[in-house]
Amino acid sequence: MDNQYIGGEYVAIKALDNNVQIIGLTRGDGTKPHHTESINKNEVLLVQFTENISAMKIRGKAIVLTKYGQLICGDEQ
Amino acid sequence: MDNQYIGGEYVAIKALDNNVQIIGLTRGDGTKPHHTESINKNEVLLVQFTENISAMKIRGKAIVLTKYGQLICGDEQ
Amino acid sequence: MDNQYIGGEYVAIKALDNNVQIIGLTRGDGTKPHHTESINKNEVLLVQFTENISAMKIRGKAIVLTKYGQLICGDEQ
Amino acid sequence: MDNQYIGGEYVAIKALDNNVQIIGLTRGDGTKPHHTESINKNEVLLVQFTENISAMKIRGKAIVLTKYGQLICGDEQ
Amino acid sequence: MDNQYIGGEYVAIKALDNNVQIIGLTRGDGTKPHHTESINKNEVLLVQFTENISAMKIRGKAIVLTKYGQLICGDEQ
Amino acid sequence: MDNQYIGGEYVAIKALDNNVQIIGLTRGDGTKPHHTESINKNEVLLVQFTENISAMKIRGKAIVLTKYGQLICGDEQ
Amino acid sequence: MDNQYIGGEYVAIKALDNNVQIIGLTRGDGTKPHHTESINKNEVLLVQFTENISAMKIRGKAIVLTKYGQLICGDEQ
Amino acid sequence: MDNQYIGGEYVAIKALDNNVQIIGLTRGDGTKPHHTESINKNEVLLVQFTENISAMKIRGKAIVLTKYGQLICGDEQ
Amino acid sequence: MDNQYIGGEYVAIKALDNNVQIIGLTRGDGTKPHHTESINKNEVLLVQFTENISAMKIRGKAIVLTKYGQLICGDEQ
Amino acid sequence: MDNQYIGGEYVAIKALDNNVQIIGLTRGDGTKPHHTESINKNEVLLVQFTENISAMKIRGKAIVLTKYGQLICGDEQ
Amino acid sequence: MDNQYIGGEYVAIKALDNNVQIIGLTRGDGTKPHHTESINKNEVLLVQFTENISAMKIRGKAIVLTKYGQLICGDEQ
Amino acid sequence: MDNQYIGGEYVAIKALDNNVQIIGLTRGDGTKPHHTESINKNEVLLVQFTENISAMKIRGKAIVLTKYGQLICGDEQ
Repeated sequence: MDNQYIGGEYVAIKALDNNVQIIGLTRGDGTKPHHTESINKNEVLLVQFTENISAMKIRGKAIVLTKYGQLICGDEQ
Repeated sequence: MDNQYIGGEYVAIKALDNNVQIIGLTRGDGTKPHHTESINKNEVLLVQFTENISAMKIRGKAIVLTKYGQLICGDEQ
Repeated sequence: MDNQYIGGEYVAIKALDNNVQIIGLTRGDGTKPHHTESINKNEVLLVQFTENISAMKIRGKAIVLTKYGQLICGDEQ
Repeated sequence: MDNQYIGGEYVAIKALDNNVQIIGLTRGDGTKPHHTESINKNEVLLVQFTENISAMKIRGKAIVLTKYGQLICGDEQ
Repeated sequence: MDNQYIGGEYVAIKALDNNVQIIGLTRGDGTKPHHTESINKNEVLLVQFTENISAMKIRGKAIVLTKYGQLICGDEQ
Repeated sequence: MDNQYIGGEYVAIKALDNNVQIIGLTRGDGTKPHHTESINKNEVLLVQFTENISAMKIRGKAIVLTKYGQLICGDEQ
Repeated sequence: MDNQYIGGEYVAIKALDNNVQIIGLTRGDGTKPHHTESINKNEVLLVQFTENISAMKIRGKAIVLTKYGQLICGDEQ
Repeated sequence: MDNQYIGGEYVAIKALDNNVQIIGLTRGDGTKPHHTESINKNEVLLVQFTENISAMKIRGKAIVLTKYGQLICGDEQ
Repeated sequence: MDNQYIGGEYVAIKALDNNVQIIGLTRGDGTKPHHTESINKNEVLLVQFTENISAMKIRGKAIVLTKYGQLICGDEQ
Repeated sequence: MDNQYIGGEYVAIKALDNNVQIIGLTRGDGTKPHHTESINKNEVLLVQFTENISAMKIRGKAIVLTKYGQLICGDEQ
Repeated sequence: MDNQYIGGEYVAIKALDNNVQIIGLTRGDGTKPHHTESINKNEVLLVQFTENISAMKIRGKAIVLTKYGQLICGDEQ
Repeated sequence: MDNQYIGGEYVAIKALDNNVQIIGLTRGDGTKPHHTESINKNEVLLVQFTENISAMKIRGKAIVLTKYGQLICGDEQ
């Protein structure tokens, strides 16, 4: 395993409701769900893009901090 | 697989309506749809340019955060 | 395929009318159309310069976000 | 072991209650809990992304300092 | 073909009249026209310096966005 | 030993009470305490992430200076 | 040919009169004219330093945008 | 010996009392005191992290200048 | 010839009188005139340091733009 | 000898009294005085960290300019 | 000869009197005059540090632009 | 000789009196005077750290420009 893997961008997600889902989608020829992590109200998930994941779908009420600013997921902004 | 793949730029998309479509278009000699991801109202998608995808088409009402600013997709700005 | 391909600059284009065309022109000895992508009113296209494309022509009403600022295509600015 | 491992991003977490849990999730093909660290009220944890950990879930009341700003975990913000 | 080709600087050109011409001039021992692209009123061209092109001549009314600022081509500024 | 080891991030900790503990947690497959350093009231510890340590737990009253700001450990902020 | 050639600095020149001349002078042991490009009133030339050209002489009325600011050529400033 | 050793971060310490102690703690598998330097009132010590030292403990009254700001050691701040 | 030659610093010179001379002085063991370029009133010369030239002497009335600011040559400032 | 040695950080010290001593302490397994330089009132010493020196102790009245600010040595600040 | 030679720092000197002398001093084991360039009143010299020159002495009235600011040579400031 | 030698930091010194001495001290195992350069009133010396010199002592009245600010040598500040 190569050590530069650890340098991928990360985002920070705070659930505003129970069962917020962060679905990692696979990098590469096909794009399919790789792993779903769920967090409950007020939990925080910090998550990187990795060798395996080049996209993330977020479902449910959450604050999402990205390098281009903040988005409110699951609700009108 | 090379570890620098993970450093591609990403954008953040928040759907403002159901069934917003993010269509990845292939890099390379031909340019054709590679994968379509759809997100529903208020869901968020974070998505990188990858080895396979050098363009993305977005259909439906959405906020798109890019490094050059924000665009409203699917509606007058 | 080399992994640094993914680091090309991208621009963001929002169509303000139907059938906005983004025509990729080939890099290299000859310069000819490589691929034409069209987007309809209010759709967004995010598109990189690639190994194959060193120029893009945009036709139709659109907002174009580049690293040197915004241009309105297809209309008086 | 490669020396660039030490350059991973870190975050800073201060517990606001007892038994705040920081659950490291594994990098790679599968994503499963790797290690859970718990800190009590007013303790601080500084923790990096590593070769083994590409995501962290935080449960319980805590201040989380990230490079995109501060989040309050376990409570309304 | 080397993958760093894609990192060349680009400029953005918006035609203010029909038949604006962007003439790429060849890099290397001789300097001669390599390719002429023409764009019509309100069309936009985004174009990189490449392995083959180290100069561009622009004829006709156009806005030219460069990293040192904006120039109006084909008209008094 | 490789000379780039010395470039790891460091944090600065000032004890506000006796017996503040800084517990280094091991990098790698397992995560367990590696070393505990304790400092007394008003002593300062400057400490890097290293090849062996990818997380640090701090117990007791202390000021912690990190690159994302200051935290008060062991007390309400 | 090496792909880093394309990274040379460029300048932007707008002719304010007909027959503005941009004379590329050769890099290397001798320094002699390599190529003369002429542009007419209101035309724009974007031109890089290259493997072959390490100096440019500009004759005639023109605006010259450089990384150290703007110069008016062919006229009192 | 490798020449990049000299690039380690340094901190600046000014003693405010006699016999301020700066205790270098060893990098690597074990963490134990490597060297203790003491400075008297108003003396200054500039000291780098090195191949051998990944942590420093400071005892006694002193001003400590770090890249994240200033700490007063050995006294209330 | 190596392609990094093209990255040398350049300066911009505008003649304020006829026959302004820019004398390139040779790099290396000896330092002697390598080439003299002369420009007439209101002409502009853009000129790089190169493999052959490590100093330039400017004679006559001219504006010289450098990265440390502007100098008026050939006249009181 | 490797040429990157010359890139070590330097500090600037101005003596405010006679016989200010700058004691270089050795890098490596042991830490012992390597060289003592003394400067008299109003003399200035500019001194780098080197392959041999990873710490410097300063005794006597002096101004010390470091990258984290200025310290007055040998006197109340 | 290596192409990175051309990247040395340069300074800009404007003579305020006749016969201002810029004396290059040799790099390496000995330090002796390498070359003396003289410029007359209002002439400008742009000059790099090179493989052969690691110091420059300037005699006579002149403005010297360096990266740390401007000095007036040969006269009270 | 390696071409990166030329990238060492430089400082700028202006003598405010006759016979200001800049004494280069040797890099390496021993530290002894390598070369003394003297400048007279109002002369300027620009001088780099080199492969041979890792410290400089300045004696006499002078302005010293460093990257951390200006010092007056040989006189009260």
